[in-house]
Amino acid sequence: MANSLGKLFRVTSFGESHGRLVGVVIDGCPAGLEINQADIQKELDKRKPAQTAASTSRKEADEADILSGIMNGRTTGAPVCLAVWNKDVKSADYEETKNIFRPGHADFTSYIKYNGYGDYRGGGRFSGRITAGFVMAGAVARKLLETIGVEIIAHTVEIGGIAAGRMSYEEIKRNINSNLLRCADKEAAVKMAAAIEEARRIGDSLGGIVEGIAPVLPVGLGEPVFSRLDGELAKALFAIPSVKGVEFGAGFGSARMKGSENNDPLSVENGRIITKTNNAGGVLGGISNGMPLVVRVAVKPTPSIAAAQQTLDMQKMQETQLEIKGRHDVCIVPRAAAVVEAMMALTLCDLALRAGFIAETI
Amino acid sequence: MANSLGKLFRVTSFGESHGRLVGVVIDGCPAGLEINQADIQKELDKRKPAQTAASTSRKEADEADILSGIMNGRTTGAPVCLAVWNKDVKSADYEETKNIFRPGHADFTSYIKYNGYGDYRGGGRFSGRITAGFVMAGAVARKLLETIGVEIIAHTVEIGGIAAGRMSYEEIKRNINSNLLRCADKEAAVKMAAAIEEARRIGDSLGGIVEGIAPVLPVGLGEPVFSRLDGELAKALFAIPSVKGVEFGAGFGSARMKGSENNDPLSVENGRIITKTNNAGGVLGGISNGMPLVVRVAVKPTPSIAAAQQTLDMQKMQETQLEIKGRHDVCIVPRAAAVVEAMMALTLCDLALRAGFIAETI
Amino acid sequence: MANSLGKLFRVTSFGESHGRLVGVVIDGCPAGLEINQADIQKELDKRKPAQTAASTSRKEADEADILSGIMNGRTTGAPVCLAVWNKDVKSADYEETKNIFRPGHADFTSYIKYNGYGDYRGGGRFSGRITAGFVMAGAVARKLLETIGVEIIAHTVEIGGIAAGRMSYEEIKRNINSNLLRCADKEAAVKMAAAIEEARRIGDSLGGIVEGIAPVLPVGLGEPVFSRLDGELAKALFAIPSVKGVEFGAGFGSARMKGSENNDPLSVENGRIITKTNNAGGVLGGISNGMPLVVRVAVKPTPSIAAAQQTLDMQKMQETQLEIKGRHDVCIVPRAAAVVEAMMALTLCDLALRAGFIAETI
Amino acid sequence: MANSLGKLFRVTSFGESHGRLVGVVIDGCPAGLEINQADIQKELDKRKPAQTAASTSRKEADEADILSGIMNGRTTGAPVCLAVWNKDVKSADYEETKNIFRPGHADFTSYIKYNGYGDYRGGGRFSGRITAGFVMAGAVARKLLETIGVEIIAHTVEIGGIAAGRMSYEEIKRNINSNLLRCADKEAAVKMAAAIEEARRIGDSLGGIVEGIAPVLPVGLGEPVFSRLDGELAKALFAIPSVKGVEFGAGFGSARMKGSENNDPLSVENGRIITKTNNAGGVLGGISNGMPLVVRVAVKPTPSIAAAQQTLDMQKMQETQLEIKGRHDVCIVPRAAAVVEAMMALTLCDLALRAGFIAETI
Repeated sequence: MANSLGKLFRVTSFGESHGRLVGVVIDGCPAGLEINQADIQKELDKRKPAQTAASTSRKEADEADILSGIMNGRTTGAPVCLAVWNKDVKSADYEETKNIFRPGHADFTSYIKYNGYGDYRGGGRFSGRITAGFVMAGAVARKLLETIGVEIIAHTVEIGGIAAGRMSYEEIKRNINSNLLRCADKEAAVKMAAAIEEARRIGDSLGGIVEGIAPVLPVGLGEPVFSRLDGELAKALFAIPSVKGVEFGAGFGSARMKGSENNDPLSVENGRIITKTNNAGGVLGGISNGMPLVVRVAVKPTPSIAAAQQTLDMQKMQETQLEIKGRHDVCIVPRAAAVVEAMMALTLCDLALRAGFIAETI
Repeated sequence: MANSLGKLFRVTSFGESHGRLVGVVIDGCPAGLEINQADIQKELDKRKPAQTAASTSRKEADEADILSGIMNGRTTGAPVCLAVWNKDVKSADYEETKNIFRPGHADFTSYIKYNGYGDYRGGGRFSGRITAGFVMAGAVARKLLETIGVEIIAHTVEIGGIAAGRMSYEEIKRNINSNLLRCADKEAAVKMAAAIEEARRIGDSLGGIVEGIAPVLPVGLGEPVFSRLDGELAKALFAIPSVKGVEFGAGFGSARMKGSENNDPLSVENGRIITKTNNAGGVLGGISNGMPLVVRVAVKPTPSIAAAQQTLDMQKMQETQLEIKGRHDVCIVPRAAAVVEAMMALTLCDLALRAGFIAETI
Repeated sequence: MANSLGKLFRVTSFGESHGRLVGVVIDGCPAGLEINQADIQKELDKRKPAQTAASTSRKEADEADILSGIMNGRTTGAPVCLAVWNKDVKSADYEETKNIFRPGHADFTSYIKYNGYGDYRGGGRFSGRITAGFVMAGAVARKLLETIGVEIIAHTVEIGGIAAGRMSYEEIKRNINSNLLRCADKEAAVKMAAAIEEARRIGDSLGGIVEGIAPVLPVGLGEPVFSRLDGELAKALFAIPSVKGVEFGAGFGSARMKGSENNDPLSVENGRIITKTNNAGGVLGGISNGMPLVVRVAVKPTPSIAAAQQTLDMQKMQETQLEIKGRHDVCIVPRAAAVVEAMMALTLCDLALRAGFIAETI
Repeated sequence: MANSLGKLFRVTSFGESHGRLVGVVIDGCPAGLEINQADIQKELDKRKPAQTAASTSRKEADEADILSGIMNGRTTGAPVCLAVWNKDVKSADYEETKNIFRPGHADFTSYIKYNGYGDYRGGGRFSGRITAGFVMAGAVARKLLETIGVEIIAHTVEIGGIAAGRMSYEEIKRNINSNLLRCADKEAAVKMAAAIEEARRIGDSLGGIVEGIAPVLPVGLGEPVFSRLDGELAKALFAIPSVKGVEFGAGFGSARMKGSENNDPLSVENGRIITKTNNAGGVLGGISNGMPLVVRVAVKPTPSIAAAQQTLDMQKMQETQLEIKGRHDVCIVPRAAAVVEAMMALTLCDLALRAGFIAETI
């Protein structure tokens, strides 16, 4: 296992879906940052299963518990340990199928890698639940980034093939909470919700695309050649279960453009160097160029589906039918958006520290 | 700068496009591996500009020079230092435009990040030329991977919007060298070549998509939750200049699938656990599942184009016209394929060492 | 802060002396290791203040609490989080002197480094109490090392200038628990105890020397040139508060020897290559040579003393008198020995994994 | 192998004693630092064998060669690669005894660790010659440290049991170059030189003690709890071949002091917080306290001696006599002092960057 991320703002994840807790240790958070439980809880609530068609029915209070590193409402410079205690755990749901690998899940790879000793209860370390730790750490990173004026939004741009229309950052910011899908295009959101409802009805699931935006970044984030802004961010985003693709700016679309179309012309605006277009998505040579950072993330449909699937019983080494019971999201895209924000915050915070934009003591 | 990649097979890049050399130090290569100059040269030759429409006209012998770590045809366990000496350097080509940021290049971000002290000659550290170091290191990684039966191919699947047809791994392997574009679909390759010729005629450039495949991997490569096979590979691939997107298996396409379509059913074949489809692209939970690893990489069109572009003169802080002279590729996709192979080799080698599939001494 | 140690067996420390808990996350412990609460508690008990002259009067149950990574009595391959909850905390003891830097403590350096935001209660992160986390992690490392036959003992060889006589490893092992000072020389221990009692009487404190021994190691532990067995071990040992010196084998004494005296002649014994003397202390070129690893650690006298001391009131920026109240050890050497064992275990375990002596799955 | 040191100022060593070169890559040196070949050569010359009794007779021009990362007399922010090419190599000296492990050398441990594939010529990677790379990197670190007013001196305080008298920093600085032994006590130096001459006459060798001093440091260098100033420095110093012990301030002597004697009373001097004594050696809680950093390093006698020694022929697996020919230092202590300075510079520079005392761009 390799459960740490970041070089100067270093996050170590621990805990399991059906163990005692899910947690995180942040090492390298500068001393003096004002932060309290509510700041962390606010982010954690974003990844709560919404009370809608899209959500799991597992009920977790998911209260952020500060275990170390914060005193009198400020970080002390010591490691910040944050935890969410597991309460609504029904491990029995998983016992009966523990020898049957669920398609699309890490059951098989985990079983082989850990020689059968891995925690199989609810996906163990491979459950989306461990992202609660990422999000708590992300909340601290966001507070740090606020001190240099960096904000981050991740919104749903596609679910089940239904795409949202393109919108300005201001529109996205205004509309993102107008529905439970974190989709700024209200009309598209209605269609997405219907598609989710239909998928639930037939015991199936849907995927989609999340777009993350940091509209204002200093020029100079990213450490070439191997700790580039795009590379580090991609690595962090692939740590979200179900992510299958990451692209920046025009992304895969740029592969079909000519150089004369794809190159963003440089110009000056109010004394600031800008580009007239943003096909680069805010990153050139692995370094932020001061234009909005734009990253898109492909989220596969939730592998846990109610409908019967063919799979393998590893003890009998023969095919079998599996109907997954328990509580599962039909579509995790809106919840993934909260985690995308967290991974962006963690990466940007680490790179901002590395580039000297955030001081060691606030 | 952050010029090292990998944890146990650790590669440190150095050198500049128009400095004295481009090189790499490999730390962690097990002792006793048989390797000689020809093994390294063979890989290096793959990224040479082909003598075709697609290529730059810069002529570099690009001979791999072994500086340390190999004695009597075997690695010694000491750091392996490999270099390519720069010879055909015409820095003057770049002097006259050194104050004019080239669109789509890292000139602007590099200028700000290094406060004007960065090496601006031919892109300096941001030139594609430094990937010669990656490829030499990749050659050593490949030799190590051969000892556990892992092979890697990266081929061109799209250039300028022209897509190659889908083919089996065997066909790809057979046809990849049938043309200079590293495209296994011979007919598509003819069209791609024509498109490149046309782009050259009008002073423009083309992008495309490279697909990397490792057909046979042991189950268990990848260290969750933050050193996953997909995440580490994505990070390595984004270190290739011009890469704007990375996806695995069905990738962005999976976002439009239902769970019942996207889940790969598990089965048994000759006593080996397989999946009947491979939408996962060989990676589940960040760990290889024994199916072919399939990754696709979006390469943007070469930013250096002959046609006039609008950009900024940073000394006058005003817009200006730029016509890039010097020697440039119209389409780097085929050369990028060689680097994709190298980055895959480096990542797989590191993860194979971490998972204990390769011993410390061969 | 930089609170992680080790590369493959990676330990992250968190918690404070007077916060909610002291804990540790172990990342990289192979799956399948048998370990339970009692195994960890046993080590933790070694560093408990003995009920003697030497000890603090703080009473902590110090029960090891397993928070993650262990299921059904075995490690799962996931991060192992272990904690000790603070209970007997009297922060008020420290409030009244919080503006007065205690001599020999990190109060001043910590105040400057963390700009006044550091946790000042009982030394916060700088308290010896955080070594409870090191010891719990060390317990896991020891269990792993047992699987390859490695054992470790650290014993008191000097307190207050009173030196123990030289003894064989077997004698040390037999006698180490014959007294509360972890001193194998029973007669010297009596004198040491008297010296401690006298120091307590006059409100003073004593230092001493701990010797750590690993009698049997495989040849090949240590990764030159910068992760040498001696260098990594020294770094780990200096993380114990109050350590001021580290030496191996003949150590500082070797500086006064001639080459012909200091060189250990090689020989063969029962088919195994040995050296006839062990001035090297088991390490040559930074690599274990199969002879007993012998390291000695200088422990300064506890800086907290009851007698009045001159120091600085940092608010008034003038000298003042300080009489430290609260509960303090007169001599921490015997407790330090438990931590020396832990740091040795952590370092040897990490290097054993790196050299391939311990497999990823047990 | 693990050939990198430092986190932000990261040095990677490569090369062998009798290979083509000895070199180093520095990753993380801020852009804009003024440095030229002469700056590096000056440090390199310090570790040259003095033309005296103490020295080896190997003659190497040892010219520093700048391969990358410096342009127009300033660092560019790219990796700085520096090399010394081997010229005066007589590998044949070593061929005839290649199966005979030299006592006190790493021949045996290296042979086992690298399964016989290690470079055995003149100690290969284990030769003191690779410290030429450390010293070149140290030269760059010193230039960086100069920008914040940090200077470093390492001087010989003991050779062959002959101790130099205690002196002030100013005296040491004034006298250190008054003799070839880097000993500030001129009278002791005469006796040391005689002892060296006598050791040479009888075919033996001598060890000694080097003291390193950084008289002025900012308060706050060192990252607890595992990247402490003392711990990181100890680790770096143990990378010097022949070092067997490291102590800070009163060091092992503090183990014999009472707390009331060892505690350094805090006071104020010219508005600056100081301690009246410096038993701590400038480091408290792993953090610099603004007092002179004082570290002492035990250097064992050179293992290569001309006199006959008993050792092992590993092919016959039986004892044999060995008389080492070739060119060897009788006492490397003065040369080690140059390397101690380099290791101090590397460590302080890294910690200064980590604590934010040196900016990313000069």
